Amino acid sequence: MQPRLITLTTDFGVRDAYAAAMKAVIMSVAGTHARLLDVSHEVAPQDVMEAAFVLRATLPYLPADSVHVVVVDPGVGSARRPVAIRVGDTHFVGPDNGVIPLILDQQKPDEIVVLDNRRFWRTEEPSATFHGRDIFAPAAAHLATGVQLGSLGSRTDVLQPLHWALPIVDDQGIRGWIVHVDRFGNCVTNITADHAGELTSSERQRTKIYVGSARLEGIHRTYADVADGDPVAVIASTGFVEIAVNGGDAATLLGIRKGSPVNLLYADTDESRGSDAGRGGEEQPQAIHASEPSHHA
Amino acid sequence: MQPRLITLTTDFGVRDAYAAAMKAVIMSVAGTHARLLDVSHEVAPQDVMEAAFVLRATLPYLPADSVHVVVVDPGVGSARRPVAIRVGDTHFVGPDNGVIPLILDQQKPDEIVVLDNRRFWRTEEPSATFHGRDIFAPAAAHLATGVQLGSLGSRTDVLQPLHWALPIVDDQGIRGWIVHVDRFGNCVTNITADHAGELTSSERQRTKIYVGSARLEGIHRTYADVADGDPVAVIASTGFVEIAVNGGDAATLLGIRKGSPVNLLYADTDESRGSDAGRGGEEQPQAIHASEPSHHA
Amino acid sequence: MQPRLITLTTDFGVRDAYAAAMKAVIMSVAGTHARLLDVSHEVAPQDVMEAAFVLRATLPYLPADSVHVVVVDPGVGSARRPVAIRVGDTHFVGPDNGVIPLILDQQKPDEIVVLDNRRFWRTEEPSATFHGRDIFAPAAAHLATGVQLGSLGSRTDVLQPLHWALPIVDDQGIRGWIVHVDRFGNCVTNITADHAGELTSSERQRTKIYVGSARLEGIHRTYADVADGDPVAVIASTGFVEIAVNGGDAATLLGIRKGSPVNLLYADTDESRGSDAGRGGEEQPQAIHASEPSHHA
Repeated sequence: MQPRLITLTTDFGVRDAYAAAMKAVIMSVAGTHARLLDVSHEVAPQDVMEAAFVLRATLPYLPADSVHVVVVDPGVGSARRPVAIRVGDTHFVGPDNGVIPLILDQQKPDEIVVLDNRRFWRTEEPSATFHGRDIFAPAAAHLATGVQLGSLGSRTDVLQPLHWALPIVDDQGIRGWIVHVDRFGNCVTNITADHAGELTSSERQRTKIYVGSARLEGIHRTYADVADGDPVAVIASTGFVEIAVNGGDAATLLGIRKGSPVNLLYADTDESRGSDAGRGGEEQPQAIHASEPSHHA
Repeated sequence: MQPRLITLTTDFGVRDAYAAAMKAVIMSVAGTHARLLDVSHEVAPQDVMEAAFVLRATLPYLPADSVHVVVVDPGVGSARRPVAIRVGDTHFVGPDNGVIPLILDQQKPDEIVVLDNRRFWRTEEPSATFHGRDIFAPAAAHLATGVQLGSLGSRTDVLQPLHWALPIVDDQGIRGWIVHVDRFGNCVTNITADHAGELTSSERQRTKIYVGSARLEGIHRTYADVADGDPVAVIASTGFVEIAVNGGDAATLLGIRKGSPVNLLYADTDESRGSDAGRGGEEQPQAIHASEPSHHA
Repeated sequence: MQPRLITLTTDFGVRDAYAAAMKAVIMSVAGTHARLLDVSHEVAPQDVMEAAFVLRATLPYLPADSVHVVVVDPGVGSARRPVAIRVGDTHFVGPDNGVIPLILDQQKPDEIVVLDNRRFWRTEEPSATFHGRDIFAPAAAHLATGVQLGSLGSRTDVLQPLHWALPIVDDQGIRGWIVHVDRFGNCVTNITADHAGELTSSERQRTKIYVGSARLEGIHRTYADVADGDPVAVIASTGFVEIAVNGGDAATLLGIRKGSPVNLLYADTDESRGSDAGRGGEEQPQAIHASEPSHHA
């Protein structure tokens, strides 16, 4: 049998040897011809939500029978359980800290197992600070080479829940925030194409978006829809609304950071707001604060 | 058939999942046993010239039948064309933004194709912001598995031109600039061994080089030709003249940045300049400004 | 024969194409199906000791017949010799600058060879600044594909020595220092579980540790043994005592850097010290300075 692909998503970085140690353990089980794909090892330290975000951006393009290891694990050594789950033919392996439900979103696991069968650990006395190497890597390697999930430990029915913090949608518009700033300074919001989807094409073009120091008009198709150096809102390749600057770094230029509020106002509302204000001269964007991000909403 | 090696050169970074998504798409076409080599994903954002520079530094050592994907794409979503070309048995895939001519230098493509056959895209409705995933990655995977270039789209005869900005050579010397600063602080100039090649070995040793706050004597064989902590000019492994500090960070120590002018004066010229100045005491390096880098020269 | 795994540990970074050029050369010898594992390319520039540290953290989990290339090479181009060694079935390839003895610790090489057989270089005229590409990469690839070590050059009996700087152990306690700060801000000391091993479990719990601005009590099993945000000393997965903050960045929060002294005082000593001082009020940690790190001790 061709071994299944194993993907790795961690916050271990590429400077230290943590990721390499996980791969070494995988190879010791599955052979040096194991199929490995680094999704990212540069997830912000202990940022479970970012880990889910980066893996979700890759998931649709990966083989359905892949084994995904996600180790962003603020609680390593504490009572949180090591788990592996199966959805259809896909496996996920990692700490039971909410990251898997975030990745699955609406999907329900077909099978959940607590990784308590020590026969499948690297050693019977695993490090208390590095379960990635001693529990998760060998579990993934065994799954990739055909071991049944049920062999790895005890069945359970529940995972620790953790939900995406959803934007607030009302008559006036959508209030969300920035969940990720990529290396180009593009700012990804938690507002999806679906949230914005009920707008007609013409409404979409007249929507006003307030974020950082910018007031944007409309949701566009691509960065190049605006002039060089101008800010623009687009539906990003991941399906989320993204704030960018054509040819520039939006985070720096517009003063946006992870967590910054984003207010998307439907055209009519904004116009009435404009006339309510009744001012001449330059229009002052009126701050509408998103409620504090509630990650456990 | 053994699949061809696919190399990836992008400015996507390794923190986000962009590079992983490209690899996932390649695997979905060519299988998880696809041969992949990351040249760099840390090209400075939107720096087409740096992308060409890093790929060229690897190209001579790679199999001749490799497929090279280069996605540094400031114009994604605009009218610039997605292309693939063939030179002998080697393929290059990327946006038609000048990067391929930079890599090829004097070589002429044998075949150029606009990637407009949607059958070979990941989807008929590609993202407007991520052609790397939706157009370039599948094109490379198809080429690696034996699809003929001609099948991927319409033939064309021209590529968007972009040339290396060449140094200015005259009787007095060579005026160039810094095109790249590596992680050690070594500063790569756009002056090649060829430009400096007409000097005799003795002239080469007496050449004076002005760059940042430094005045260097001679082009040396290796960093260790000078004392620890001293600046030195060498012919780097890439064939370009490089400014370094033995055991130190030349960029920081000498105040050099990408774009800094570099003036290489032939020995005789410099000596006459020295006596013209007719000053006693400490010699003042006289700034000779390179003309502004003209990347589209 | 299945080719042996080749691991790479360098300070070349992932932005430049140096690591990619080494892999390209390996593939040109061993084929594109060569088995490669990046241990780290982000070793701090020219930090031989960090290179040894990261490779040692991976070594126990790798196949015994692997070929390990370690290129952190401040002396490239100088008289230092390029070498390869064999210990049992494992090979190491790199500059003879002390890194290999650091990795081997107490183990003795079975065979040492100076890589002076130019037939196995990439070219007879290697770059003076990039032996990684021109000498070490091809040597590793040849070893991985079955070439005998003895063919690569002349036998020799000695390696340049370089030893771990060991902590000082006396009646009062152990005086060491921080040898590595990882991306989470965890601070690895040069004090191993063995040094601390003679303490009883109860003594271990009452041990006082002074480091940066912190005074810690006891060596714990895991970060989660203390409250969120509290500092803690644990035995890390690498076997070294590590200073961490549960859920936080110890280096920043406690003002610790690479080279910072760490003083571990046995419980009785500390108590007597406390009463000797005879002060009321808040206890003042009394600085006990480690001798300057002596890396060639």
